[in-house]
Amino acid sequence: MINTLHFSSDYEKDLLIRIQKETDKIGYYNLPKQNTSYIDDYLKQLDRRQGLDNIKDIVVIGIGGSSLGAKSVYYFIKSVRKLKRKLHFIDSTDPITITNTCDRLNLNSTHFLVISKSGSTIETIAAYKYTLGLINGSATDCFPFTFITDKNSLLEKHAVKVGGLIVNIQDNVGGRFSVLSSVGLIPLILADIKVDCLLQGAAKINNSFFKKGCVQEALLKKATFYAKNSTNYNINAIFSYTDSLQYFNDWYVQLWGESLGKKQKNSAFNVGLTPIGLTGPKDQHSFLQLLADGTRNKSVTFIKLKEFNNQQSIPDIRLKELENLDLINNIKFSTLINLQEESIFESLSASKRIPLDEITIQKQDEFSIGQLIYYYELLTSLVGDLLNINTYDQPGVESGKQILVKKLQQIKNNRS
Amino acid sequence: MINTLHFSSDYEKDLLIRIQKETDKIGYYNLPKQNTSYIDDYLKQLDRRQGLDNIKDIVVIGIGGSSLGAKSVYYFIKSVRKLKRKLHFIDSTDPITITNTCDRLNLNSTHFLVISKSGSTIETIAAYKYTLGLINGSATDCFPFTFITDKNSLLEKHAVKVGGLIVNIQDNVGGRFSVLSSVGLIPLILADIKVDCLLQGAAKINNSFFKKGCVQEALLKKATFYAKNSTNYNINAIFSYTDSLQYFNDWYVQLWGESLGKKQKNSAFNVGLTPIGLTGPKDQHSFLQLLADGTRNKSVTFIKLKEFNNQQSIPDIRLKELENLDLINNIKFSTLINLQEESIFESLSASKRIPLDEITIQKQDEFSIGQLIYYYELLTSLVGDLLNINTYDQPGVESGKQILVKKLQQIKNNRS
Repeated sequence: MINTLHFSSDYEKDLLIRIQKETDKIGYYNLPKQNTSYIDDYLKQLDRRQGLDNIKDIVVIGIGGSSLGAKSVYYFIKSVRKLKRKLHFIDSTDPITITNTCDRLNLNSTHFLVISKSGSTIETIAAYKYTLGLINGSATDCFPFTFITDKNSLLEKHAVKVGGLIVNIQDNVGGRFSVLSSVGLIPLILADIKVDCLLQGAAKINNSFFKKGCVQEALLKKATFYAKNSTNYNINAIFSYTDSLQYFNDWYVQLWGESLGKKQKNSAFNVGLTPIGLTGPKDQHSFLQLLADGTRNKSVTFIKLKEFNNQQSIPDIRLKELENLDLINNIKFSTLINLQEESIFESLSASKRIPLDEITIQKQDEFSIGQLIYYYELLTSLVGDLLNINTYDQPGVESGKQILVKKLQQIKNNRS
Repeated sequence: MINTLHFSSDYEKDLLIRIQKETDKIGYYNLPKQNTSYIDDYLKQLDRRQGLDNIKDIVVIGIGGSSLGAKSVYYFIKSVRKLKRKLHFIDSTDPITITNTCDRLNLNSTHFLVISKSGSTIETIAAYKYTLGLINGSATDCFPFTFITDKNSLLEKHAVKVGGLIVNIQDNVGGRFSVLSSVGLIPLILADIKVDCLLQGAAKINNSFFKKGCVQEALLKKATFYAKNSTNYNINAIFSYTDSLQYFNDWYVQLWGESLGKKQKNSAFNVGLTPIGLTGPKDQHSFLQLLADGTRNKSVTFIKLKEFNNQQSIPDIRLKELENLDLINNIKFSTLINLQEESIFESLSASKRIPLDEITIQKQDEFSIGQLIYYYELLTSLVGDLLNINTYDQPGVESGKQILVKKLQQIKNNRS
């Protein structure tokens, strides 16, 4: 008996070629090397309008992709550096959140960024109207609103009409891929984040991926594994061992879930990978038991920060009754948290049936989080391609919006 | 041909009987009707020690079940009521979090609650040593620590030695089921939360479940459905439509994941239900697409707040270019957020293949969250019983702890 195999091993090569083709029509690929002169122009306009030195607080009115990216970078940097201005995020219709946030503001030193790609996001327009009401009722004499939206959106037309400042979003950049566009960069530069370093970090991953650097192999291999095993390992957890990545986790959850939860292009079959964002060591006391002993349907990516911006040690205080734990004395907290990460990694790898990987970022700076962001954007695109879905749309959220409009229309009809 | 069926329909009756038997040995069942005189005794002791009026800040040093419960109730109430004292939570070994939290404190008006059931939680002891170092280095002349721990734990012995205040945890209450024990009630009473109302809410669900009230049928039916379908619908999302339940979501994730991710009693087969905590409407712009179009492996429970403690409306500002959205004018934000919840519920129910249910809580008060907490504790016990697992242990987290101790020992050996 003869059995000759002619299985192709060109999967990964073909995948790379398909992704290279995408870079013409999907905008986010080109953001790391964008021309940022529009940011300087904008800052000059804002300075003339309100005086940059007068502005202490920035309110980002935007939901989903219009706030999660800036939030993730802002809190990552803010935990280790004193920033020039404070960012506040209104990303809800919860009246308590909206009023509590606005009650803390001094309207004379606040600027509002109204961010909506489509320009007609109902939560964003509701919050905009609320803050506009506050401004109209105040003694403020300037119009402290900037509108970040797609060219020619209805919101842009409105902004022109009322004389708001306008920044357009680069072409073909979807909400969840927009953190490195004007959507993320404008709030971040106002907070005093080094957006050039953020873009350099992203550019480094971009180069390393498209020009066969060390990231290329890892990304292709990982994406292929995730896609091939998407029915059995259908949950992908990231386990970040620093609290400063808390909102990065939320950003990842949106990017992954909204991109990869789709009907397949040909079959309309429901597929999807479920993202989970965990924080260590906290979630060792919450989610770890499920990872360790639960159903083998989860992959875990550990994210580790190499250099914490803090050298604090556990003091050398011996406690006789708890002498077993005197082992931790004189250990830096940063050493301890990284040892915890290594220990959990080892304990889970012992099972052999939990796909594990580890990402190490160097520092708590813009360059590092720029790398991490771009790495995950590329990974998402790769997996989406292999799952045979449209990674960049979100058709499943439309019917809920339409039902809401009908309900609002009914209320209006009943009133009049 | 004759086919006579003798299928039992006594599942639910048997389940109820088994759970009733558990109430003798599992402590949390009896917490709603606990004698709370120990709380008054404790407050008197604390008053003598440090003067209750002098204490402005309470630091909870505890991780997992030792902090998530109090955190969920505290933030739920805090969003709508000015409280007497501020709670801070140190539930990490991240040096930035620990030092940033402590930098904000005035040590003269701070009291620390060191909470650990076993008494030897490494994160908790590390943070305790750090804060003890701060106190030792300060001018404070009292010892501002209370220890909440199991009777006869090593931490209790230490507390006796150093003259700390001590509150024991009620017998047989596991960490993730401990929010209604001293673990949750002591921090909450110090913040000014009405813990009697919290317990009354829990007692109401307890009665309704064990004495065949309306909750009994819902819980038995829901638990049976989740357990029977635990392999296909293995992800259980809760979708809370108020930001004030954000930390309740985290509490749920721990309760559900750590209780239900286990090896089965007889087979040692890995089973588990994966919890997801979502917040609306924010996560309509993040996770909803995956729910709507992704793999049909998720159930969704919507949690709705009937009466928001805020009557703010969207002002009647008409925007010509966005006139389609003038529909929201004069609508209360609380009405809008609840309409959003109803719309998403309807849109997902259209698929017929996503198990949905809805929980409505009345108000942003202690009674309502007490009900919600106890409802989820009972549901967890019921599902755990049906999955044939031990709901109350967490053996999977041990090996990581042991590996960590080995690594620390190695460092110590290398140093000496």
